[in-house]
Amino acid sequence: MSLIPIGQYLINRLYEAGLRRLYGVPGDFNLEFLEMLAADGRIAFIGTCNELNGGYAADGDGRLSGFSALLTTYGVGDLSALQAIAGAYAERVPVLSLAGAPPLHAIETRALVHHTLLNGDYDNMMQAHVPFTTAQARLLPDTAGAEIDRVLTAVCQRRLPGYLQLPSDVASVMIPAPTAPLNLAPPPSDPGTLAMTADLLADKISEARAPILLVDCVVSRFQLEQEVAHFIEKTGIPFAVMLAGKGTLPESSPAYRGVYVGAGSAPALYDYVAQADCVIGLGVRFSDLATAYFTQKIQSDAWINLDADCVQTGFGQQARVLNGAGLKAVLAATLERLEGHKPFALPETGPSRPADVPAASEPSGEVGKWNGSVFWNRIQAFLRSGDVIAAEAGLSSTALNAMTFPDRTRYVIQPAWSAIGYTCPAIMGMTFARTKAVAAEGGRTAPTEDEGRSLLFIGDGALQMTAQEISTMLRHDQSLVMFVINNRGYTVERCILGVHAAYNDIANWDYTGLPGVFGPKARHRSFSVSNQGELEEALKAAENPEGLVLIEVHLGPMDVPAKMLKFGQTCNHYDYARAL
Amino acid sequence: MSLIPIGQYLINRLYEAGLRRLYGVPGDFNLEFLEMLAADGRIAFIGTCNELNGGYAADGDGRLSGFSALLTTYGVGDLSALQAIAGAYAERVPVLSLAGAPPLHAIETRALVHHTLLNGDYDNMMQAHVPFTTAQARLLPDTAGAEIDRVLTAVCQRRLPGYLQLPSDVASVMIPAPTAPLNLAPPPSDPGTLAMTADLLADKISEARAPILLVDCVVSRFQLEQEVAHFIEKTGIPFAVMLAGKGTLPESSPAYRGVYVGAGSAPALYDYVAQADCVIGLGVRFSDLATAYFTQKIQSDAWINLDADCVQTGFGQQARVLNGAGLKAVLAATLERLEGHKPFALPETGPSRPADVPAASEPSGEVGKWNGSVFWNRIQAFLRSGDVIAAEAGLSSTALNAMTFPDRTRYVIQPAWSAIGYTCPAIMGMTFARTKAVAAEGGRTAPTEDEGRSLLFIGDGALQMTAQEISTMLRHDQSLVMFVINNRGYTVERCILGVHAAYNDIANWDYTGLPGVFGPKARHRSFSVSNQGELEEALKAAENPEGLVLIEVHLGPMDVPAKMLKFGQTCNHYDYARAL
Repeated sequence: MSLIPIGQYLINRLYEAGLRRLYGVPGDFNLEFLEMLAADGRIAFIGTCNELNGGYAADGDGRLSGFSALLTTYGVGDLSALQAIAGAYAERVPVLSLAGAPPLHAIETRALVHHTLLNGDYDNMMQAHVPFTTAQARLLPDTAGAEIDRVLTAVCQRRLPGYLQLPSDVASVMIPAPTAPLNLAPPPSDPGTLAMTADLLADKISEARAPILLVDCVVSRFQLEQEVAHFIEKTGIPFAVMLAGKGTLPESSPAYRGVYVGAGSAPALYDYVAQADCVIGLGVRFSDLATAYFTQKIQSDAWINLDADCVQTGFGQQARVLNGAGLKAVLAATLERLEGHKPFALPETGPSRPADVPAASEPSGEVGKWNGSVFWNRIQAFLRSGDVIAAEAGLSSTALNAMTFPDRTRYVIQPAWSAIGYTCPAIMGMTFARTKAVAAEGGRTAPTEDEGRSLLFIGDGALQMTAQEISTMLRHDQSLVMFVINNRGYTVERCILGVHAAYNDIANWDYTGLPGVFGPKARHRSFSVSNQGELEEALKAAENPEGLVLIEVHLGPMDVPAKMLKFGQTCNHYDYARAL
Repeated sequence: MSLIPIGQYLINRLYEAGLRRLYGVPGDFNLEFLEMLAADGRIAFIGTCNELNGGYAADGDGRLSGFSALLTTYGVGDLSALQAIAGAYAERVPVLSLAGAPPLHAIETRALVHHTLLNGDYDNMMQAHVPFTTAQARLLPDTAGAEIDRVLTAVCQRRLPGYLQLPSDVASVMIPAPTAPLNLAPPPSDPGTLAMTADLLADKISEARAPILLVDCVVSRFQLEQEVAHFIEKTGIPFAVMLAGKGTLPESSPAYRGVYVGAGSAPALYDYVAQADCVIGLGVRFSDLATAYFTQKIQSDAWINLDADCVQTGFGQQARVLNGAGLKAVLAATLERLEGHKPFALPETGPSRPADVPAASEPSGEVGKWNGSVFWNRIQAFLRSGDVIAAEAGLSSTALNAMTFPDRTRYVIQPAWSAIGYTCPAIMGMTFARTKAVAAEGGRTAPTEDEGRSLLFIGDGALQMTAQEISTMLRHDQSLVMFVINNRGYTVERCILGVHAAYNDIANWDYTGLPGVFGPKARHRSFSVSNQGELEEALKAAENPEGLVLIEVHLGPMDVPAKMLKFGQTCNHYDYARAL
């Protein structure tokens, strides 16, 4: 039996789980692990400016690559990133938070070591992580191998974050090398539950006159895009997406019916779902933002929601939950039962498809009336196949959610957690995932034109939260386009309360100067856009960006879609209604 | 009985506790409270770029003003600031973390609302805060008044952080206005314990031949500087400071004996303490960094440590703890018992005072050999009475800790928590506390020359963590001097492990360009310093700064005091020794 250091065991398992990049910040309790990582050479360490940004970057990477991780040091590090880890939980992203910890001899003697509260308590960091991670462990010499395997398996199988503490003097302790590969596949379904679920679903579909499928984020998180597309093709059932599912399946599909957001949906889609006799959810979560504040209308006996490992039928008193049947297995078993069943005829079975992508508007040479509508319409035409897009919670995601995406668009938003500032580091992680994937497969490091671009849409208030991570993009010579919507403050809050309130104002930065300060020697171009002509000029550089292209877009503080004003009113009523 | 909204009740109590500035970020669950705050007008809302920075700013403010608070929204906000709150706990700073929360009707129905995990769990944020705060409450209509009073009292009495959740629809609920003022004074000592402690201490002092006092942060946190100075004067006992106590008492005092850092102290001080027959600690915590890794040498029967509400005598097996006797009361009662006792004769009773402040070196006009020693020596001469100084953990605090401070210097470091990035937002909070205090008393808003300056010493790696908060300083036209030590990476980590490792490298920003980008219209000047002549030029602008003066100081990656190299070796050995 060969022995290896625990740090090396961990590196091997992380690599096996697919990790190629580890984000984070060095600190005195994780340096020896970083030495091992560098010596091993298979996983790149991407230093970020701070730990929260590192967590966001890992989240963005993990959404595209399927698994990601963050390395920090104890207390000052892992706690800084905890919000990002909680966000990964809310958004169902498998991010491992790996924290160096004080040496075991200090923990055992409750020594008063820096990065602790100086009260001898060494359980508090773990305690803070328990509510926001699906599995946790402190790595100890006797159990480290088994605990690494347990936590990594849980993270990858459930697609939720996990937490590991590596005491500084434990990394070099020798333990037996793994003898078998990790089994990261979802646990097998219970045969009885699976059969019952597939029977139920097949019957429901067979008897349906007006069925529809609602796709939520579970599909992309479990990388089941192909299986779901196949299911749709075979059954002929039309589909709509929940906000978090947008971009998962080709919107050019004849079966596509748009985004379902409760009463915020297109009226035809809303009505269709309301009267549908078979509504199949794929991991649907009816949250406030996903349903325009709980306005979904679905008949209880029409409802069946398939999640990663359980199935729910009906709502409220009629709700019934079956555990132990996995989404992938249920889809396959249902298709078997439907063999010979005539597919539904499209497009007769539902509301019509959303309008096709409008043709790109030609620059007129004249400077017309500038406003958000002009800008967002032009962006719709600017998108192209293969683009990887991050849109910040608020105006950016509201605008992008309403667009039609070219096929093979990857779209990252946070409709559950909605932490502003998230997307700036996230697009960096997404860009690593996008371009390094290319490098691993074909030996190229720069994406070609048809592979799309990295596009970020972010507001000024959000960017100020995490702006320094622009320097990390520049340091790694990432090519991406960053649209900074400068509307002088927290516009989404203004829509809710305090439209003119000083507390919603922020400092007005020289956003176009940021790249020059954060990476003086890196490739970058900046543009400030206040009219259509300037926008066209900027978009030329953005068409195939070389290095960072930052485009500051000036919009009025309340230049928002009507939908967003409505959201603000509803949110205000929900939050502050005098119900007590 | 008059009724007021719960939000107003909270504002009244915060004001009563001394709060004049509330740091934070608006979010949809705290907007109505912000409206009330604005209407009330007595407490200024200082919006920060993100919540962690807001927490750091509050910590810096609270150290000078005695109490501070942070306002965030649920989950995305309070969790982002949790690390700063934990740091306030480690460093004993009373910071209230106040978080807007989803409305009570959502909590009660476990509604799937954004900024939660969408799993119906509304206890997790509280759970995460419990280990890092001394008191917590969710404000509910029936108990809000009592809970506000309980948590604020605990925070102020214990000088530790607290946590309050204010559900969005609760702020406007009417409750009875307070009928009595908050009692924020420390709880009275138990008379028996107090008498026993004072007897013990008075006896110890009476019989002592070689006594010494060790001052830790408890003295400044409980604002007992005058009481302790009086005690020293009356008894004639010499004093040294622990790192966290530096700046608490005038270093020009004939009783001052330097900084006690175990074997890292001046040899005469180290030896004196080792043979002293009466060593009186004031809230001393023998942590790793405070003792050069546990090298303190004190005779067990000489040791008595007075803390805010308890007293310890002896070490290890001989240790005895008495709870219920407060530091202030013990000092006063002991002095009573010592009435008539002849004060110890200074300076014969201890090691000699540290060298006087060297005279300012005159600029020679020639450019000499440039290195860290030249820079730090010049800074020693640059300091003046009334300066408020923040020094980042690592090189900056190592250098500043070794300096002699002019009287009335306020010095902020984090020897316990050591979160890099802390000082940039902290100096902003400290500057508000320093200048607004003046405004409140004398009607002036700008400090005069003899009131000193705000000085920040921070490394490049630390600044990158929190740099955006420079924009908030500029937005409020703060006058301060920021020394940015550009030594190309995490120098303190290089001293521990990976002196040439890539993971300790960071991007090289154009630091002098930061103010122009973060506040294009604000008052600021920037300097880049690589020799003595450039330093003198910059210091002219820094002498009486108008607006922000940013001075980038170029030093070699390993241009550090010998003491820091030694620390790195010791830390490496402690963290990574093959003890297992």
